[in-house]
Amino acid sequence: MMRRTLDFLLHDWLDIQSLTSRARFSDHSVETFSAVLDTCERISEEVFAPVNRIVDTDEPRLEDGVVVLPEAAYVTARAYVQSGMLAAAQDYDIGGMQLPYVAEMAANSMFWKSGIALGGCGLLTVANANLLMAHGSDRQKVAFAHNEFSGRWFGTMCLSEPHAGSGLGDILTRAIPDPDGAEDPLGPRYRLHGNKMWISNGDHELTENIVHLVLAKIADADGRLPAGVKGISLFIVPKKLVDMEGNLTGERNDVVVAGLNHKLGVRGIPNTLLNFGEGAYPVRGAAGAIGYRVGRPGEGLKCMFHMMNEARITIGLNAASIGYAGYEASLRYARDRRQGRALARDGKSSDGGAVRIIEHPDVQRMLLAQKAYVEGGLALSLYCARLVDEANTGAEHDAVNARQLLDLLTPVAKSWPSEWGLEANSLAIQVHGGYGYTRDFPVEQYWRDNRLNMIHEGTHGIQSLDLLGRKVRQDDGAGMRVLRSRIDATIAACGDQGLQGRGEELRSAFLSLERAIEGAWMNNDHVEALASATPFLQAFGHVVVAWLWLDLGVAAARAPASDRAKGLRQTMEYFYTFELPKISAWLGPVESRSGVCRDMREEWFDA
Amino acid sequence: MMRRTLDFLLHDWLDIQSLTSRARFSDHSVETFSAVLDTCERISEEVFAPVNRIVDTDEPRLEDGVVVLPEAAYVTARAYVQSGMLAAAQDYDIGGMQLPYVAEMAANSMFWKSGIALGGCGLLTVANANLLMAHGSDRQKVAFAHNEFSGRWFGTMCLSEPHAGSGLGDILTRAIPDPDGAEDPLGPRYRLHGNKMWISNGDHELTENIVHLVLAKIADADGRLPAGVKGISLFIVPKKLVDMEGNLTGERNDVVVAGLNHKLGVRGIPNTLLNFGEGAYPVRGAAGAIGYRVGRPGEGLKCMFHMMNEARITIGLNAASIGYAGYEASLRYARDRRQGRALARDGKSSDGGAVRIIEHPDVQRMLLAQKAYVEGGLALSLYCARLVDEANTGAEHDAVNARQLLDLLTPVAKSWPSEWGLEANSLAIQVHGGYGYTRDFPVEQYWRDNRLNMIHEGTHGIQSLDLLGRKVRQDDGAGMRVLRSRIDATIAACGDQGLQGRGEELRSAFLSLERAIEGAWMNNDHVEALASATPFLQAFGHVVVAWLWLDLGVAAARAPASDRAKGLRQTMEYFYTFELPKISAWLGPVESRSGVCRDMREEWFDA
Repeated sequence: MMRRTLDFLLHDWLDIQSLTSRARFSDHSVETFSAVLDTCERISEEVFAPVNRIVDTDEPRLEDGVVVLPEAAYVTARAYVQSGMLAAAQDYDIGGMQLPYVAEMAANSMFWKSGIALGGCGLLTVANANLLMAHGSDRQKVAFAHNEFSGRWFGTMCLSEPHAGSGLGDILTRAIPDPDGAEDPLGPRYRLHGNKMWISNGDHELTENIVHLVLAKIADADGRLPAGVKGISLFIVPKKLVDMEGNLTGERNDVVVAGLNHKLGVRGIPNTLLNFGEGAYPVRGAAGAIGYRVGRPGEGLKCMFHMMNEARITIGLNAASIGYAGYEASLRYARDRRQGRALARDGKSSDGGAVRIIEHPDVQRMLLAQKAYVEGGLALSLYCARLVDEANTGAEHDAVNARQLLDLLTPVAKSWPSEWGLEANSLAIQVHGGYGYTRDFPVEQYWRDNRLNMIHEGTHGIQSLDLLGRKVRQDDGAGMRVLRSRIDATIAACGDQGLQGRGEELRSAFLSLERAIEGAWMNNDHVEALASATPFLQAFGHVVVAWLWLDLGVAAARAPASDRAKGLRQTMEYFYTFELPKISAWLGPVESRSGVCRDMREEWFDA
Repeated sequence: MMRRTLDFLLHDWLDIQSLTSRARFSDHSVETFSAVLDTCERISEEVFAPVNRIVDTDEPRLEDGVVVLPEAAYVTARAYVQSGMLAAAQDYDIGGMQLPYVAEMAANSMFWKSGIALGGCGLLTVANANLLMAHGSDRQKVAFAHNEFSGRWFGTMCLSEPHAGSGLGDILTRAIPDPDGAEDPLGPRYRLHGNKMWISNGDHELTENIVHLVLAKIADADGRLPAGVKGISLFIVPKKLVDMEGNLTGERNDVVVAGLNHKLGVRGIPNTLLNFGEGAYPVRGAAGAIGYRVGRPGEGLKCMFHMMNEARITIGLNAASIGYAGYEASLRYARDRRQGRALARDGKSSDGGAVRIIEHPDVQRMLLAQKAYVEGGLALSLYCARLVDEANTGAEHDAVNARQLLDLLTPVAKSWPSEWGLEANSLAIQVHGGYGYTRDFPVEQYWRDNRLNMIHEGTHGIQSLDLLGRKVRQDDGAGMRVLRSRIDATIAACGDQGLQGRGEELRSAFLSLERAIEGAWMNNDHVEALASATPFLQAFGHVVVAWLWLDLGVAAARAPASDRAKGLRQTMEYFYTFELPKISAWLGPVESRSGVCRDMREEWFDA
């Protein structure tokens, strides 16, 4: 079912065929894109979906310092590697498929729908290797990244520490130059010491080696660390040391898993506390994890941001995909389950026996809401993925516009599906009634799994500061101008399709965003402006998705009449009737720079 | 902390001292009420809270037909029995305390905050016994109810069946008159056969016997069951048979636990599928569970409704209490955890080191929202509990008014705290960041536990049909008239406290509810009117809670200046700034009788 939605979005809406006219994608066609999606759909349904509950129940555990995973984790990791998706976007000459990012993301979304915690967390490995391709030396690419794209090794991202999550400037992991390390062919060599928290796939036996990318600060001669985020550098720290060709040297690096985090959801992925350089495995005669610097000293976070922006789009698509899983499950359930009587206009329910619950208006509402959230989330994610392709391969002016719009939409692409995909999963439970509260049905797991997405890769609060504090004003509002022009184009197309009224509502909603921004920043006071940044993020997300739904409605109206087109049109009507009106409540305190939260005193909370 | 809020609500707001002038409560005083709350607070903190995680982890399991519970379940059940709360509201002469309902509920809320799944689910036992006190024969009261109030036995409510939850008219459990059973001193005796689903505490070894109250249909001479809800009767089915004095006869009844439901939360309470009368334990020579009818044939659901109305208030208070647990935990965490820098007005964060996260505006917002939801939910629940006291012991006119208002508010008292207490728990996770997603902190359990409350005792959808379909129009709108007069009284009191503006907003909000009701019912068409009943329920709940917050604001303004009073006032401001404006989005489709959901076709969903 999701596959048909993806096909509509990719072909009828985003016109990915047009990408095949670009040199990088010129070997591709609608058929090759479909073949990739076919393969991923088949593996996700046949291999992933059946074991999704197993990895939830049979959690990773630590035995004698080794992370033990159920067989299902190995099977799905192998299947994911064999799909070739780890290298989907890479050049042919290193074994890639040169797939557009939007197609890569669409194909991956089916895996995420079937089991977010399966596949050895391919997305982290790809993000890790992509970062090395962008910022690593040629030798680092060959020795590390290429072995990740092939699935021989998996990768991690080691940013947070137990005391420093959102506030990375405070990390304490230290890197000390190795006496003879400056000329190491794998990169300037250091010894790292510190603890890293929340490291997904931080240790496992799925692959013969693990490539950690670690943020740390280079100590000066007196052992002092530079302050703030500008003092952060980036290092490759392999679990097992390798030579220039990427062969294992037989040396274990000084990295150990110190503990597993026991999570609410996404339990299939071992989430670890890693200790670096505490001497558990002294290497080459000394304690200290060997790490090779990537990029220049102090540019660690800059390198990371490249990865983190695409990661935010990925998280949004994760959330929409898990949301879709719940939508499919509850739609199936609502079609089977009989309960209650159909309501008659006079209020008397005639007794023709219990009806399928999909016939109850409130169940229809809950299904429509889910459809609006998860297909809206998919549309937003894939639209942003398409912008990535435009920024990377479009003509210059288009590429600049795409980058500006992408910068603006990235916090929304991360946050909106995370919030509303979760709400969709809650509605999926609600459609199931008491059964939805049991572990005999999959929906409670989806809800737990999805709760992570409002937290990692920057919380809602962090995204909102990025949006209202930076992005809406960046480059003198360039992103907002691109957004407005695209919204205008959609509104202009409404007339031919009898959607003028919705177009006017969208215009008015966008104006209310602009008024809220103006009101918030009236005094150019960051404290005042940002106090209600999160409600602003919510409203902004709803307006953006309302725009996309209208654009989908226009696309549906242009397509030949079909059940699909009618469903899209009706869901668009749902969004404009039930959802878009929510923005005024969110924007009120933004525009007025409400001091209600700011003025609250700590001692008043518990009195 | 919750205790101080309870004290304010009970004494400064609901003036429970005034109840002591009534005959039933004349032995009570502020001191005796406080003594009960002191005892409950102590037990809940010392005995319940420390083991709340244990019963989540060490789930009930079935071994050789016996439900195995951890020791913590026994300890807390014993402690709850010893608190005397099972009989709190009962007459002195049967060992009760003659406590007002509102005080009983307030005292219980502290147990629910500390461990919703602990205490042997006292609330079901009390509801069961209360029902027998209202509808049972004298002998049934002595043989069954009195033994429940003493904690010697626990009770259950057996309504749902695997195929019939919300639609009880379709139950298939059959009762066949026992040949010589008409004159049984314990009540007309039947043999029951059928399966009951979702039975909390359906089997356990916490007490020597279990009193099941079972809905079933009496088969006619040809074995046919009457159709619909009017064919439902009520039966006492003890797990072990008893004599007239309530002594065990040594006979096991034909009831067996056929399975346990494995739940998302509230795991400490064994939730069971029970088989009645399948011959596993033939009794007195035949298969069939022996049951004694309560009340008249066909009046089973009527008897049950008495219990179910108070149960709905209880569920709301459960939800508010779990919400409060998360609020306390996240407030504590926000005071300890350091992360990030304070934002300066010019946007540059000076480096005075990491600040406690309670200093970040978005964290303040999340804490204020939680306070508004959970204290608003407490206020709503206790206000309704106070109405129960008024209906039971007030002067005639007051009692009638209280009953009318209570009827109107009951679906709201059930649904509003369930929805927003859950949202509070989600915010509590969010305040904790990644740590909140782990099982090392209690907040993820609260969120899972609380998700049940939107489902059981009637889903949100069911409550919304009750509210918009019945309650707002019942007795020619009597409940709405009482509500309006009380809202008017609060608004009239605003003037003295400088709250006129908020009063006007409340008046306008109430008018918009009235307009929505009028719009919905314009054509007196149930299908049209009820299509958006759930958004109406949400809006109605927000207006009711806005009224209570304003009333609390007035009470706080009248009280001597204090941190507590300032906190209540600020939370009221939060509710009017961030929450009340949400109602217009919810009411839009109600008032316009939107056909968006109704017109959706099944085949459009997945196309």
